[in-house]
Amino acid sequence: MKKTYRLINGMIASLLLATSAFAGDAALEKKFDGLIDPAEMNGWLETMAAEPNHVGAPHNKANAEMTLKQFQDWGWDARIETFRALYPTPIKVSFDLLGDNGFSATLTESPIEGDAPTFTDKALPAYLGYQGDGDVTAPVVYVNYGMPDDYETLKRMGVDVKGKIVIARYGAGWRGLKPKLAQEHGAVGCIIYSDPHEDGYAVDDFYPKGASRPPQGVQRGSVMDMPTYPGDPLTPGRGATEKAKRLSRKDAKTLLKIPAIPMSYGDARKILAAMGGQVAPEGFRGSLGETYHIGDDGAAKAHLVVQSDWSLKPVYNVVATMRGAEFPDEWILRGNHRDGWVMGASDPLSGHIAMMGEAKAIGALVRDGWKPKRTIVYLSWDAEEPGLIGSTEYAETHEDELVAKALLYINSDGNGRGFLNVAGSHSLQHFANEIAVDVDDPQTDGSVDQRARAQLMIAAAAKGADGDAKKLGALAANPSSDLPIDALGSGSDYTAFLQHLGMAALHVGYYGEGDDNGVYHSLYDDFAHHNKFVDPGSAYGGALARTIGRMVLRIADAELPPVRYGDFASTVSDYLDEVKALADDRRARADAQAAANEAGAFARAHDPKKPYGAPTVLKPVPHVNFAPLEDAVDHLKKSAAAYDAALAEKGPALAADKKRRLFALAREAEQALKIREGLPGRPWFRNSIYAPGTLTGYGVKTLPGVREAIEQERFADADKYSALTAAAINSYAAKLDSAVKLMND
Amino acid sequence: MKKTYRLINGMIASLLLATSAFAGDAALEKKFDGLIDPAEMNGWLETMAAEPNHVGAPHNKANAEMTLKQFQDWGWDARIETFRALYPTPIKVSFDLLGDNGFSATLTESPIEGDAPTFTDKALPAYLGYQGDGDVTAPVVYVNYGMPDDYETLKRMGVDVKGKIVIARYGAGWRGLKPKLAQEHGAVGCIIYSDPHEDGYAVDDFYPKGASRPPQGVQRGSVMDMPTYPGDPLTPGRGATEKAKRLSRKDAKTLLKIPAIPMSYGDARKILAAMGGQVAPEGFRGSLGETYHIGDDGAAKAHLVVQSDWSLKPVYNVVATMRGAEFPDEWILRGNHRDGWVMGASDPLSGHIAMMGEAKAIGALVRDGWKPKRTIVYLSWDAEEPGLIGSTEYAETHEDELVAKALLYINSDGNGRGFLNVAGSHSLQHFANEIAVDVDDPQTDGSVDQRARAQLMIAAAAKGADGDAKKLGALAANPSSDLPIDALGSGSDYTAFLQHLGMAALHVGYYGEGDDNGVYHSLYDDFAHHNKFVDPGSAYGGALARTIGRMVLRIADAELPPVRYGDFASTVSDYLDEVKALADDRRARADAQAAANEAGAFARAHDPKKPYGAPTVLKPVPHVNFAPLEDAVDHLKKSAAAYDAALAEKGPALAADKKRRLFALAREAEQALKIREGLPGRPWFRNSIYAPGTLTGYGVKTLPGVREAIEQERFADADKYSALTAAAINSYAAKLDSAVKLMND
Repeated sequence: MKKTYRLINGMIASLLLATSAFAGDAALEKKFDGLIDPAEMNGWLETMAAEPNHVGAPHNKANAEMTLKQFQDWGWDARIETFRALYPTPIKVSFDLLGDNGFSATLTESPIEGDAPTFTDKALPAYLGYQGDGDVTAPVVYVNYGMPDDYETLKRMGVDVKGKIVIARYGAGWRGLKPKLAQEHGAVGCIIYSDPHEDGYAVDDFYPKGASRPPQGVQRGSVMDMPTYPGDPLTPGRGATEKAKRLSRKDAKTLLKIPAIPMSYGDARKILAAMGGQVAPEGFRGSLGETYHIGDDGAAKAHLVVQSDWSLKPVYNVVATMRGAEFPDEWILRGNHRDGWVMGASDPLSGHIAMMGEAKAIGALVRDGWKPKRTIVYLSWDAEEPGLIGSTEYAETHEDELVAKALLYINSDGNGRGFLNVAGSHSLQHFANEIAVDVDDPQTDGSVDQRARAQLMIAAAAKGADGDAKKLGALAANPSSDLPIDALGSGSDYTAFLQHLGMAALHVGYYGEGDDNGVYHSLYDDFAHHNKFVDPGSAYGGALARTIGRMVLRIADAELPPVRYGDFASTVSDYLDEVKALADDRRARADAQAAANEAGAFARAHDPKKPYGAPTVLKPVPHVNFAPLEDAVDHLKKSAAAYDAALAEKGPALAADKKRRLFALAREAEQALKIREGLPGRPWFRNSIYAPGTLTGYGVKTLPGVREAIEQERFADADKYSALTAAAINSYAAKLDSAVKLMND
Repeated sequence: MKKTYRLINGMIASLLLATSAFAGDAALEKKFDGLIDPAEMNGWLETMAAEPNHVGAPHNKANAEMTLKQFQDWGWDARIETFRALYPTPIKVSFDLLGDNGFSATLTESPIEGDAPTFTDKALPAYLGYQGDGDVTAPVVYVNYGMPDDYETLKRMGVDVKGKIVIARYGAGWRGLKPKLAQEHGAVGCIIYSDPHEDGYAVDDFYPKGASRPPQGVQRGSVMDMPTYPGDPLTPGRGATEKAKRLSRKDAKTLLKIPAIPMSYGDARKILAAMGGQVAPEGFRGSLGETYHIGDDGAAKAHLVVQSDWSLKPVYNVVATMRGAEFPDEWILRGNHRDGWVMGASDPLSGHIAMMGEAKAIGALVRDGWKPKRTIVYLSWDAEEPGLIGSTEYAETHEDELVAKALLYINSDGNGRGFLNVAGSHSLQHFANEIAVDVDDPQTDGSVDQRARAQLMIAAAAKGADGDAKKLGALAANPSSDLPIDALGSGSDYTAFLQHLGMAALHVGYYGEGDDNGVYHSLYDDFAHHNKFVDPGSAYGGALARTIGRMVLRIADAELPPVRYGDFASTVSDYLDEVKALADDRRARADAQAAANEAGAFARAHDPKKPYGAPTVLKPVPHVNFAPLEDAVDHLKKSAAAYDAALAEKGPALAADKKRRLFALAREAEQALKIREGLPGRPWFRNSIYAPGTLTGYGVKTLPGVREAIEQERFADADKYSALTAAAINSYAAKLDSAVKLMND
């Protein structure tokens, strides 16, 4: 077995001692690796991706039943847990451009000769989940990505979308923000299309010749307002069980009020070609091979209709348990969703089959006599695509038990060829690094850790003295330094666990060489495409199983918590530096704008041939009281250093009950990061360190209460959340202090 | 008259005293402004741009004669000075794509209905001047911009252009480098086309609806190796007079050896569509609305023929002199070229008519009794487009006299709506700022200085705490701080004066709102386009005349040299910092690459489905001996500060002969910047501070001997040129020391 200690923050001495707490059972893991069979997994993928797997599809239910049966065959205690959630499905979707160049959008994805599953008649029409339904006729205006900066640009150009249908291209931010922002700006409808610049012919030959999105390809997706809360819109904060108390639809805050549809560029280019008015500014230009116009001449008028079936639909989670022999009430959760927008080969089944591979191997190990000390729970989620529904309803339903028992949640989702990427709770950063050195890369003679380091070293070589790349390159070049893990925003099933329940969580995947963007959420995300362009033979599916399986095995049997709090402390300290720099930057920007305004600069630099008004006036940026946060981070750093030292020095020799208490304290520490009242305007999100951005959707905002308050000019909230976040961090540090006391007593 | 002092480098006290040396005669300048008539200038523009004006065209000669006649009518002593230079014109140009999708490129620009001059039959076929002629048949390979980074990328992709015809798009570097680099990499032919991404429909509607390049539009241009030396290829360093000693064509270092042609995207897209092979990487993708391929499958095979008439052609410069009343042997030169690739309305006639406006106004002032103290020389250059020939041959022919007499050269070229931009010798930075505050902007109620500041303040407001923008924004917000001027590379007629003779030079123009990119060097650069899209009514032509005219008037009558050496010293000091940082950056890059190599990172991160080899190995970067340069810059700073203080304190009261000697010393100081042996591999370029880059063509490299040695891994040259540049700077400083002594004695 490989050497598994690392140097970070000068703690090498203690780590040399601590490593035994992190290391796995080499013989067990070798045996586990031998049980992972990518060819078999690839077969499951072909079977499971043979037909459409959207929520409510017969084949999705069949996959749940197959998964259940297999888990049971493999020795797991498995069941299907069913919820009933609001999930609209389309009854009528139509778009007609009116006038001389009028046409009716096809809104359909034609089958590909030689790729049998694409000939299905069981797919739903392409649509956007949780849009608002409606029947509107209005001029179409092009709003670029439809993000806040774009509306600012349009405002300065004198363009108002009120009463208009907007057409936005995919990209630059989460899909669901586009119709939401359109609605806030007074638009009556929204089209989101896939410009070839993002994932079409500009990037690669299109499918089936290459991996990219063909002209008729459509990206479906949910536009539920998930940054407010994910899961069933009618049951926020509680499980959508059969008899749950439900909101009425009109009171559900996460539902849009205007109709919205997704579109291919084959259809969208005809709309854009019909538009006149101002020429789109530089950042608005895609790859359609013509001049983009804003459409503010009103020349492109259209009729958009969406009508949905808003009934509740069943959601089938498969829950499989392998009971722990020593600590049955200490749980390790591991999940991947199973539903797709159509077949869903890459998203999500390529990750689901890795989870199945792990489960089969764990079952075999148990059959051969291995007894995990802790309880392992494997979870096949339904209804992730419409809004993380399966995982959210499970987490909400079982909140009390999970908070009391679950040590962490490990997630995966679509997976492909490339480089290991781990994101999540930074207390587990070192643990993740420990794992990576022991996983063999399928394509090279070495570990996935070595391959990730190689990539960073190459980036550093390309960028020279540039700060971040150089720093990362130096870390990568030194195998005794850990690689940093990313923070988690949203976009997959870890959200409810990390951000609502306050559990430690990791999201694990391989990315970077497989090309699945071009079929994302389309008919063409099927086995043939995945097996050709994303991960032939599911080789990296195998690597994923060996990575997460290893994590599960180690935690299941760990003597001591696999945490290193120094990593978390230094990461939070970096976040605080970022937030302080953000405030300074915003202040400099506001001051510079005020100076420019005072000097009449906007009028003076005005181009009379291309009118562009003054920007929205920025509020003056007061100095935020960062003192509570600075004190809390100091506290955290001291407590973390003391914990890490004590764990290394005293941990291995502790009595069993103290070791067990350390696990409880580790669990409690993560949960201490929750802010009781939640984040501003979205109480469901309670984690003070990690959240998806309200204006990024998926993208993370760290120290979100403070950071977003500064970004959104809510300066009273910035002070308030500086104090609330500080209190959470102090509570976390206090748990570490308790643990240190326990170890030293 | 406005207050005209500024604060920079803490020298406000001395500058308060010095301002009298910089200020102009307000009454004279007001009268001058009244004599500038944009409507009349616009009429000249329409007349002069009525027919093709390439070198040798009858209409270009007619324009020379008209210019001559007008200068004479306006009271100037004017003549035409003729040179004979090698200037190839096309006899045959053809391109045929072979095979099933074969076609013959049109290579012509069709006329535009309603735009009469475009129906001319007198234009030359679209071609590239000084390409190598030939008749080749070979597969076509796409090389993106055809710059060094692109060839590095292709090498890593396993693509060799040896024996191929390359097709490159315009952009990212000077045109002439593309066939030169292609030739160096073994290509047998080169096509340069205008991708719509750069100046076509991606940017704006195309002409005549909008300003952009139409599908049939072609950018002509010269591919003479001007970074080696500009001017007649057969007479480097001496004037191309009738009887000059000439090189044979085969010995001329600035001539290409392979055939090359320019192309429209209407033609080029058919070639690109015929190509297969690898998909072009991200940075290679233009806006043609399809997937770009490299063509390394050899599917697109073509036949390219270029045959030229290589005879000498006459070059007609108009030289007009207004003799100085007090110091006839102190000259102020001011020039603009007159030849175009076709009609040349924007480039160059929009600047030429401003020069004519100035000349007429100066003539009128003289007729009314004004007697300039110094001699003013106005220069209408021919043959700038093929290679700065008119100005270079003039400078080379009259080198001795110019070096002895000319104080500075002021240049302009194509001009349009927008913001004042001044570039050139930094000793004149303050002078340029002084001028800008006194020139009224045509579009706003204020000066062109205020408008330039407004633009910088807006940029600062948009960029927040970003270093450069913030610094510039703060400068702009403070009217007593000067705005920096840019350094000059090449691309217009200042080159021979600044970089060969070592004279002070300024290049002045208005840019930023007029759209002339889309017709650049094409048939469509005509009066109708200019008057609609670039500068309606030549309003900014008027501003240019009022700007440069003011410069000429002030220097003609100045009591003291209009210099402030502190600006030059601090600028050179910044350049030295940049060069030191460059060495550090290159070292970090080389070290990081070596570390990555040693760790086998390139092999390890290799994607077997998209092979991409290791980069070319960087040489280890030794530490350059910057000590001589550091000492020289220290010397310069002290000398400059002493000079500026002495000039302010004692200058105004100096005796007339001392004042005159100060002008001579100012001239000699600039010339002291010349390095006798010139820059490495290009002895024609002698300025130690400013040069066009050998691998940028137009773009400036400051401290070029040192900077390019580091960039190009010639580390022995870096040390050598550190010393040579230091010696030049010390000589410059010594001239200032002499002046200080003169003033203090």
